[in-house]
Amino acid sequence: MNRRMVAYTIGQIIKLGGILMIFPLIVSAVYVERHCILAFASTIIISLLFGFALTILCKPKNYVIYAKEGFVTVAFAWIILSLLGALPFYISTEVPNFFDAFFETVSGFTTTGSTILSDVESMSRGLLFWRSFTHWIGGMGVLVLMMAILPTDSGRAMHIMRAEMAGPVIGKLVPKIKDTAKILYLIYFILTVVEFLFLLIGGMPVFDSIVHALGTAGTGGFGIKADSIASYSPYLQWVIIAFMLLFSVNFNLYYLLLIKRFSTVFKSTELWTFLGMVLVASGMITYSIYPMYQNFGDSFRHAIFQVSSVMSTTGYASTDFDLWPGLAKGVLFLMMFVGGCAGSTAGGLKMSRVILLCKIVHKDIKKMLHPRSVASVRLEGKNVDNATLNSVTTYFAIYAGMILILFLILSFEPFDFTTNLTAAVTCFNNVGPGFNKIGPMASFGKYSNASKFILSIAMLFGRLEIYPMLLAFYPKTWTRKN
Amino acid sequence: MNRRMVAYTIGQIIKLGGILMIFPLIVSAVYVERHCILAFASTIIISLLFGFALTILCKPKNYVIYAKEGFVTVAFAWIILSLLGALPFYISTEVPNFFDAFFETVSGFTTTGSTILSDVESMSRGLLFWRSFTHWIGGMGVLVLMMAILPTDSGRAMHIMRAEMAGPVIGKLVPKIKDTAKILYLIYFILTVVEFLFLLIGGMPVFDSIVHALGTAGTGGFGIKADSIASYSPYLQWVIIAFMLLFSVNFNLYYLLLIKRFSTVFKSTELWTFLGMVLVASGMITYSIYPMYQNFGDSFRHAIFQVSSVMSTTGYASTDFDLWPGLAKGVLFLMMFVGGCAGSTAGGLKMSRVILLCKIVHKDIKKMLHPRSVASVRLEGKNVDNATLNSVTTYFAIYAGMILILFLILSFEPFDFTTNLTAAVTCFNNVGPGFNKIGPMASFGKYSNASKFILSIAMLFGRLEIYPMLLAFYPKTWTRKN
Repeated sequence: MNRRMVAYTIGQIIKLGGILMIFPLIVSAVYVERHCILAFASTIIISLLFGFALTILCKPKNYVIYAKEGFVTVAFAWIILSLLGALPFYISTEVPNFFDAFFETVSGFTTTGSTILSDVESMSRGLLFWRSFTHWIGGMGVLVLMMAILPTDSGRAMHIMRAEMAGPVIGKLVPKIKDTAKILYLIYFILTVVEFLFLLIGGMPVFDSIVHALGTAGTGGFGIKADSIASYSPYLQWVIIAFMLLFSVNFNLYYLLLIKRFSTVFKSTELWTFLGMVLVASGMITYSIYPMYQNFGDSFRHAIFQVSSVMSTTGYASTDFDLWPGLAKGVLFLMMFVGGCAGSTAGGLKMSRVILLCKIVHKDIKKMLHPRSVASVRLEGKNVDNATLNSVTTYFAIYAGMILILFLILSFEPFDFTTNLTAAVTCFNNVGPGFNKIGPMASFGKYSNASKFILSIAMLFGRLEIYPMLLAFYPKTWTRKN
Repeated sequence: MNRRMVAYTIGQIIKLGGILMIFPLIVSAVYVERHCILAFASTIIISLLFGFALTILCKPKNYVIYAKEGFVTVAFAWIILSLLGALPFYISTEVPNFFDAFFETVSGFTTTGSTILSDVESMSRGLLFWRSFTHWIGGMGVLVLMMAILPTDSGRAMHIMRAEMAGPVIGKLVPKIKDTAKILYLIYFILTVVEFLFLLIGGMPVFDSIVHALGTAGTGGFGIKADSIASYSPYLQWVIIAFMLLFSVNFNLYYLLLIKRFSTVFKSTELWTFLGMVLVASGMITYSIYPMYQNFGDSFRHAIFQVSSVMSTTGYASTDFDLWPGLAKGVLFLMMFVGGCAGSTAGGLKMSRVILLCKIVHKDIKKMLHPRSVASVRLEGKNVDNATLNSVTTYFAIYAGMILILFLILSFEPFDFTTNLTAAVTCFNNVGPGFNKIGPMASFGKYSNASKFILSIAMLFGRLEIYPMLLAFYPKTWTRKN
């Protein structure tokens, strides 16, 4: 284990984190929120001091790292960034409990969007902006951002991107990983600006438009109103539906569109399966909730809004779906596991893993009929090797196991079965709201500090797809031999 | 596909099923229940006619079968036996809805123990005996029984036992599969008789003792009182706890004890993990329910009773655990997935699969630290090959997927989230009761006919470990080429 290199990279990330906090500082200055200016300024100073201390003291002797260093770097970078990111909430005294502040920041960076705030509308603008900005930073990945802007050798970049980006296989768009990171962030930035403009045109105030564009782009879900998106016009809700879906699509497809490889995009199995699933789920929910709204248009809009919100793992709500009938809630519950496409900012299992799981099962059945046949699994026109297939099934097993264990730990709380189970599912998949006491119009504030901490760690496990966090806390990772 | 052989074996099974119904016929005669005598006698005649028709008309030209014939035979044998087994309920007019009668019989054979009866205490003795006897037949497997008593060639026997018996690997106790089947049934029979005697000594009436011994042995769970086992004495409850656990242990271990290979038994990872889990789960529940009972003895007895009942997938209840606090219910919910040991009459995922899943994940983590290392997984002192490991993770994926889909289908019912989710989990794992509207003191009678049918099929999927049912309904199984 090249520990100096891990510490050095984390130092760089912390400095970057400090610099990024200049944006919420500016917002606080614009709205003349003195206590926020102080909070952000002091956090920036702490971050820079800490970051420089690490990069100077831990200047590595060699820059070579392997996969394990990539995993550990990403895990600790995210934990430390979340601790630092929580400071403005705490220093400003708007979130007086540090566990709450940590939960809120992790929920932001991991683009979960679960909140502990019971009265979001009373928060100051600087902090509201910071919450949504953490979504944007965490959505594409802060280490990917660093790769894009700092000089890095490609071996290091590859291991770190593998650990931070979501999905069963990471595709390089261009030979240089650094250029891939740049292209991804450019697409991300442009799409965010486009959404901002569409929201502005629809009459949403500037601040609201910025915040919601950032929250949609990262598929986060922090809103600035107690009723999430419910009080905005249908036009604005449709814009958000469209962009939640756009940000759940594999970003590689946008690059392929840019370089005019249209046929590859239109043949994408993951894309069509994802869109098909959105439509089927929306159809089922429309059928289920029609008696409540007595109007096809409203029913369908609410259905597709919630489906897009849950599958993209954003977590916005256009209505209190906790009041919906069992079928609608059942569909939403299942979609929480599926998530968006690999290589997007969405969470969950990822569409491509679900497709691969189905294909693996189908291969198994065929194998039973013809034991001597050689069956292979293909995705997007390519053979998927056995190592990847095995890693998908193993990932699913550990994923399901961790959700169940998380649910067991939450059961120590005096809440009902549905609340605790959906809390585990929604946090681990980075969706946001659940059912009952943690519905879309409620908050996680009622959980104990211990549970909030556990849920924060679970969100990190989910966002980083388990292995980085698992390796970081696996004792053998730290034995001298490595 | 050797279709004649499939039909011929099913014919044999149907005859055996008809003959086994002589036992409930005798019980009906003893209690002079005329309508039951008629119901059983006519079902026996139908079964024998149908069975002979099949064996005579489909006399096969060759007796060679492969794995796929084994799967298909087992699937159809179970479905047809359940249809025939439902006739006595229906003909006697005590269960006037055939969907109910089918559900009840499938629930019996699959040793689930979920019931549709709202007033079990008003049923006649012959039918109550038949319900519990289906548990006993289904627990060890009706085809295994046929292997034990009819002359069969060993290739055929092996494929059928593989398909009917539970667990990731099937161990042959002795070189001849037929002798293995005999030994298993002998151990099964003796243990059942011993439990019967222990119950009788404790003052349980003869009929009650027979019924509960059969229900425990098959890890089924049909009771004959509205409050399950709650009204029996603590001594009787402890006897049932002991035997629920004894029947959840791999039967191979009993054989090893008989041939005095004690050290192998005492080194069994699966046994100790199972018992350890029972104790830990019972401890957590005792802690959780202590405030309700204010007495350690009672709390611990209820805790270990429910844990043994759920892990053995029996489904008896010594108290209404649906009223327990969240932690206790959370633990029980998790244990529904685990189930008992492989090679026992218990359902669920099976302990050895859970152990293998944990070891596979651990291997994966080690592999990430040392990519070039060769890690192997060992269980019970033997290396487990990669094909078995992959089949375990794939099995888990399809298992979890099917439970979620089953839950989605049940969501069309006007019941709450918890009821539908636990109904899916409890039926698929063959446990029996769930939470809320299908708690241990409630019934499945409120579900629609369509849902009852779906749940019946789901119980069969769970009991036969998915693949036999899946292959039976997979169109390509039936193409000419096979």
